[in-house]
Amino acid sequence: MLKPNELLQRSVDLACANVAEGGGPFGAVIADGEGRIVAEGRNGVTRCNDPTAHAEITAIRAACQTRGDFRLHGLLLYSSCEPCPMCMAAAWWSRLDGVIFASTRQQAAAGGFDDDRLWRAFETGATSREIPIRHVNLPTAGAEFEHWLATADRQSY
Amino acid sequence: MLKPNELLQRSVDLACANVAEGGGPFGAVIADGEGRIVAEGRNGVTRCNDPTAHAEITAIRAACQTRGDFRLHGLLLYSSCEPCPMCMAAAWWSRLDGVIFASTRQQAAAGGFDDDRLWRAFETGATSREIPIRHVNLPTAGAEFEHWLATADRQSY
Repeated sequence: MLKPNELLQRSVDLACANVAEGGGPFGAVIADGEGRIVAEGRNGVTRCNDPTAHAEITAIRAACQTRGDFRLHGLLLYSSCEPCPMCMAAAWWSRLDGVIFASTRQQAAAGGFDDDRLWRAFETGATSREIPIRHVNLPTAGAEFEHWLATADRQSY
Repeated sequence: MLKPNELLQRSVDLACANVAEGGGPFGAVIADGEGRIVAEGRNGVTRCNDPTAHAEITAIRAACQTRGDFRLHGLLLYSSCEPCPMCMAAAWWSRLDGVIFASTRQQAAAGGFDDDRLWRAFETGATSREIPIRHVNLPTAGAEFEHWLATADRQSY
């Protein structure tokens, strides 16, 4: 059982180890309130050809497999770096109790990563300037939600 | 080779099929500029115990595996529903050319999904109200970026 700062240090150690092995400089740990590690993650974007394989996403997916649940109530995410909007939203969808991070989005920017720019786009409602998005009013749109709401045994989340 | 509206209809069809098979009401298609489908995705959150397995993320990961690349330049994402912040950021990290969607975040909310609430948290800079986040100034933080910048053959992204 590790203390909070030891868990956070572990995430930084994972980030450093990942760089040594050719990966990106990000690591993450998911632990329960008593400091027991449930899962760990390293950035695997280039190694796995997966732009979503940030350390936090990788740790969340691993923790869910370990738990056999798509919800992580009662667990905390320790990340070597402030999560990007993708990872912050993933932490939210996974119902984690909270996030603790060491390096900041500004430090990530100095390392050549775009997190700070992406955060600013979200915080100013300007994501469509970064990636063009278009709504097409398809006549059949919404049928999927009608099917969903008509399904008595649907598993909500 | 399908026209844009046919690709979008395909994403709605995938969403409906997913509901019929017990999954969430979301589907996505990734195609090139000529309308050739590169990958498809369905929401697998409950089926796969993976809170990150939104249809868009699943399609992005599949397209990257097909391409053998973590970048999807030249491709478009067609989604049955307006992407949540996680998926929008994933679209950005994957360097897709753009996103086209059918149902809106408000329609998703009527279906019982939290996308609209999550978007508002991001757009008002209030994500920390949704999930507690804390910065701890670890003395060793930043070492991972120093290692990274000192690695001559690092693969940036």
